[in-house]
Amino acid sequence: MKLQALVFDAYGTLFDVHSVIARCEQYWPGKGAALSQTWRTKQLEYSWLRSLMGRYVPFSTVTRDALAYACETLGLALDAAQSDALIEAYHALAPYPDVPGALEQLRASGRKLAILTNGSPDMIEPLVRHCGMDETFDAVLSADALRRFKVAPQVYQFAVDRLGVAPADIGFVSSNCWDALGAKNFGFRVWWINRQNAPVDRLDAQPDGILKGLGELPALLAS
Amino acid sequence: MKLQALVFDAYGTLFDVHSVIARCEQYWPGKGAALSQTWRTKQLEYSWLRSLMGRYVPFSTVTRDALAYACETLGLALDAAQSDALIEAYHALAPYPDVPGALEQLRASGRKLAILTNGSPDMIEPLVRHCGMDETFDAVLSADALRRFKVAPQVYQFAVDRLGVAPADIGFVSSNCWDALGAKNFGFRVWWINRQNAPVDRLDAQPDGILKGLGELPALLAS
Repeated sequence: MKLQALVFDAYGTLFDVHSVIARCEQYWPGKGAALSQTWRTKQLEYSWLRSLMGRYVPFSTVTRDALAYACETLGLALDAAQSDALIEAYHALAPYPDVPGALEQLRASGRKLAILTNGSPDMIEPLVRHCGMDETFDAVLSADALRRFKVAPQVYQFAVDRLGVAPADIGFVSSNCWDALGAKNFGFRVWWINRQNAPVDRLDAQPDGILKGLGELPALLAS
Repeated sequence: MKLQALVFDAYGTLFDVHSVIARCEQYWPGKGAALSQTWRTKQLEYSWLRSLMGRYVPFSTVTRDALAYACETLGLALDAAQSDALIEAYHALAPYPDVPGALEQLRASGRKLAILTNGSPDMIEPLVRHCGMDETFDAVLSADALRRFKVAPQVYQFAVDRLGVAPADIGFVSSNCWDALGAKNFGFRVWWINRQNAPVDRLDAQPDGILKGLGELPALLAS
């Protein structure tokens, strides 16, 4: 398949946030799942609201704010050390098991590889280093450079500009359906990794393909 | 208090969406609460994502799309007649018990009164008529005129333009904390109706006041 570059979302797509959930459960036994779900919902909500309001702050701040809200709404006491430890857990996530091998195969195909994430450099750069992926990507691109978050079209345009590849020649991969459809709306060729067997969001767009994991992509692109 | 106009959010602020929840429960016993929560979450999510993507559709369409998603994710079969009936239930909501009296008192104070809602005219106009409030408001303003949703500043600016009143002389009332803070960010004086005793959202703004219901507002403004 004629694609010159592959661009990946980071959190939940390449990197498994499970260790953050485990840390929540350790602090507040029995509440880890509810906390991490509310935390994630608010993290996304704040990123979209701040983009619409024109009140940008880095994703690390959005993440911390969302954690504080989630703890308050669930009645969980959160001290500064716990907050710091949970944010730092984002710097040391593991990639999904099939990710390193798939990236290696995709890299061998000669295409450019990049990350395009809402995560601010203070979050994503330590994580890429932690995973030993410094040499894997041609570019690690953060929405922070645009001071707005996905699904603003400017964020997807940033990958076009930085990679020097036309939208139709970029394949975009995300486990977040809204992100996949935002990228499709922008003009990328898009694969949605649907690990949870969730419905497709109703946003007048469809992904070009739906995968169970990144491991399926090299064979698809080779055919 | 020197305010020339009062502007109200509609759904959940003036009008109680409980009857929609009851209808959900009637169709899918035991699932009404989960369905209406997922439906509402997706309705808001789609409104923000579509504003950011630049893919506007009327709020009635967003609401129908969110319902379809929510039913699919919960494994509930939804036919066209049920979908129509649930959307139509939005045209026949009841105002909260303290709302008609409070609006009458606020109107008697000589201030302009308006609704500013994401709801498209095909939703909000039948509802205002149903509640016998045709004569209550100086303006019923829909974000539809701007083809984007709150918290885009342009939506709040629309009230300024249509009422001919400066932002600092407008009091804004919403039960949605994100809407209250979006309006505060824009420059209105803001009251958040917090019926659920929820935390304040972390968006770098605070409402000027927090109320348990609209019934508290006339006395506050008279003092």
